[in-house]
Amino acid sequence: MVTLNFDKLGGLIAAVAQDFRTGEILMVAFMNQEAWEATLATGRATYYSRSRKSLWVKGETSGHTQIVKEILIDCDNDAVVLKIEQAGGAACHTGYRSCFHKRIQNGSIQVIGIPIFDPKEVYKK
Amino acid sequence: MVTLNFDKLGGLIAAVAQDFRTGEILMVAFMNQEAWEATLATGRATYYSRSRKSLWVKGETSGHTQIVKEILIDCDNDAVVLKIEQAGGAACHTGYRSCFHKRIQNGSIQVIGIPIFDPKEVYKK
Repeated sequence: MVTLNFDKLGGLIAAVAQDFRTGEILMVAFMNQEAWEATLATGRATYYSRSRKSLWVKGETSGHTQIVKEILIDCDNDAVVLKIEQAGGAACHTGYRSCFHKRIQNGSIQVIGIPIFDPKEVYKK
Repeated sequence: MVTLNFDKLGGLIAAVAQDFRTGEILMVAFMNQEAWEATLATGRATYYSRSRKSLWVKGETSGHTQIVKEILIDCDNDAVVLKIEQAGGAACHTGYRSCFHKRIQNGSIQVIGIPIFDPKEVYKK
């Protein structure tokens, strides 16, 4: 088991999901020890949901799972990059491919990219 | 001023520095409101150092500043991607181009990449 430092962020590390083919950054989330171990064990990106205070298997509800192709660790062992294949084509719960679909342009926010799915359809009860 | 949400991480947001040409992820750091405003105002990546508890103009000591080419904001306004040009070629204080110079290979850590500078020379007093 590769040991990471969860102490600097109250039990969490930052995790960046990056498209393994294009290099596009799809999302930033957090992992606790349990999420890290689950990611290693299953090969599916698993995070810790700070709002729900529970393990979050990415795509468990939407089907938009992230298949881990490669894992990079930073110098301080307190952040990881997951190079992933994004099932369903979109990482963001808003339906966009990337959570980073807003760009600063002349001091204001401009939305970039095209929604891939309709959240109302994907997350309906 | 573009307003971000610093509440979810005790006054901080996560910031990912990505090479604006190659898409390589160079580092993950944190910003408080002051660091965010300084980044916007100066066009140089400015973070908040959690260890020093102070503003951290990246490269202030080493000369390895980060020139901001583009800023992306995530869906929740609590994380940013800085697409940057890395002065001096290396973002990591260890001398590697990227802080993410370790890869998990068969359950253990393998160092990838070649150091660009010698930290003992760059950070000598």
